[in-house]
Amino acid sequence: MSRPPGRKQDSHKISRELFVLTYGALVAQLCKDYEKDEDVNSCLDKMGYGIGIRLIDDFLAHSDVKRCRSYSETADMIAQVAFKMYLGVTPSVSCSSAAGNEFSLILDKNPLVDFVEELPVERASLCYCNLLCGVIRGALEMVHLAAEVTFLQDKLKGDAVTEIGITFLRKTEDKKAKKK
Amino acid sequence: MSRPPGRKQDSHKISRELFVLTYGALVAQLCKDYEKDEDVNSCLDKMGYGIGIRLIDDFLAHSDVKRCRSYSETADMIAQVAFKMYLGVTPSVSCSSAAGNEFSLILDKNPLVDFVEELPVERASLCYCNLLCGVIRGALEMVHLAAEVTFLQDKLKGDAVTEIGITFLRKTEDKKAKKK
Repeated sequence: MSRPPGRKQDSHKISRELFVLTYGALVAQLCKDYEKDEDVNSCLDKMGYGIGIRLIDDFLAHSDVKRCRSYSETADMIAQVAFKMYLGVTPSVSCSSAAGNEFSLILDKNPLVDFVEELPVERASLCYCNLLCGVIRGALEMVHLAAEVTFLQDKLKGDAVTEIGITFLRKTEDKKAKKK
Repeated sequence: MSRPPGRKQDSHKISRELFVLTYGALVAQLCKDYEKDEDVNSCLDKMGYGIGIRLIDDFLAHSDVKRCRSYSETADMIAQVAFKMYLGVTPSVSCSSAAGNEFSLILDKNPLVDFVEELPVERASLCYCNLLCGVIRGALEMVHLAAEVTFLQDKLKGDAVTEIGITFLRKTEDKKAKKK
């Protein structure tokens, strides 16, 4: 990337419709490529991961955010800053474990499915937006936060809301590294 | 689409980086799927066409533009309104034929290749951004303007600028329809 870091955010704002339709074309292509929904889901997650590990630089350069001091702050940051920046929506966040490491991002409206009526019957197990899980996982990993990210509910599958679950994992790798 | 037509534009503005990276993932997937660059180019064009014929509704609903009365006005509209809306850049426009039906959109900076260093040697004939040609072609067709849209120059291939050529074709179909 050759952009100056201080560039104003407005200069790279776009309408999201072209993105949403292009994403649809990507998912459709993967559905042609892979027979099993699980393979499409896995491919979307992997692609998202590759995007997340690159997008984090852009996020840190343009979001002007400070270092998060807790999982809870991190989850809020993803919802309120990152989702707003990249998808134009702000999910609500809830903590779903006593241990304080499991969070849900709840989307009343998922812009990525703006042009999708419903999943075809033969694609009932498709996680249409699975790219997002990969993006979040990849971006978190680059700030040394290992996490599992999956769809827990999906309006496309008839659920009332779309819910992305983020489980922060213990940083065993970091601890091992420190011991050395 | 279930959006109210009068919705304000700002509510669907997003950062373009996620789009640019997702587009990169799409092109990479097609390069896995097809050995020949020509097949990737053709697939991107087809996908773009499918996007364009849907995107035009969004464009007309949100751009608040009036009907164009000439090819020249149409080319300006694509550059100054559509490119600005969907990619955040404004190409310059030049007319390149005495007949007044050939135009060039010239991009000093192509945001879609923000994260692309250069094309791999084995992909020298790839039109990385060919989706855009399809989008323009599809959108124009929906407002009854047949056109050929192709990349004439591409910075990714070492050219000084990126240039998209639009040739408006005679509306033979329309004329036939009217005769009936």
